[in-house]
Amino acid sequence: MNDTTLEQTLEGMKLAANGLIPAICVDHETKQVLMVAYMNVDSLRDTIQTGKTHFWSRSRQKYWMKGESSGHTQQVKAIYTDCDKDTLVIEIEQHGAACHEGYLSCFYRKLNDEGGWDVIAEKLFDPAEVYKK
Amino acid sequence: MNDTTLEQTLEGMKLAANGLIPAICVDHETKQVLMVAYMNVDSLRDTIQTGKTHFWSRSRQKYWMKGESSGHTQQVKAIYTDCDKDTLVIEIEQHGAACHEGYLSCFYRKLNDEGGWDVIAEKLFDPAEVYKK
Repeated sequence: MNDTTLEQTLEGMKLAANGLIPAICVDHETKQVLMVAYMNVDSLRDTIQTGKTHFWSRSRQKYWMKGESSGHTQQVKAIYTDCDKDTLVIEIEQHGAACHEGYLSCFYRKLNDEGGWDVIAEKLFDPAEVYKK
Repeated sequence: MNDTTLEQTLEGMKLAANGLIPAICVDHETKQVLMVAYMNVDSLRDTIQTGKTHFWSRSRQKYWMKGESSGHTQQVKAIYTDCDKDTLVIEIEQHGAACHEGYLSCFYRKLNDEGGWDVIAEKLFDPAEVYKK
């Protein structure tokens, strides 16, 4: 990794007014979208340099590493950006499950023919157990 | 489709302060992320009811249907939402290419080992031809 190149890459990202960029985390093999979270420049730099995903939580206004509470870390396999450089796709190897509700993917609800949501996945863990600390 | 159910679903979405929700459009077969755009309630309703993706453009402050200029429409195959109901994943069949720069996917840049971006896809069309109107 070239530090100067990396800093130029970080400066070239088009952040939203709140300084954040959405990061879409997908399974590196199946390509399934597992979760979407937001990064600031520091969390993107740390994600690139450590190979584990780091984010900025809008609800908690807090810097966090995915898995710091649950142990369900994400190993970075590849990072992509789009034409506007305002969104990231991160291919990851998910340890455990991505969703804090216990599902592999946060996107466990599918629109049905009536216009309502169906739950289409099963929980891999019990959130009460994992986040009991 | 049940109109009452659909309206309840729309009311249940957690929109950002600007009234928008990000929609991640993925190829329904390969699951590749093709583009990310933003929807308001009207564009989500129209997307569900017409089976073609509609969005709200933040840069142009304008309602639009994907493909209205280029002809590169997106046929909706399935719609998912996440645990927070603040993001959508839409599986689509892409006609033509999703990116206005001519690539199949907007995510045509991959981070390399130096910390810079490599273009890893080829253009499927010439934007100057398609958007010449």
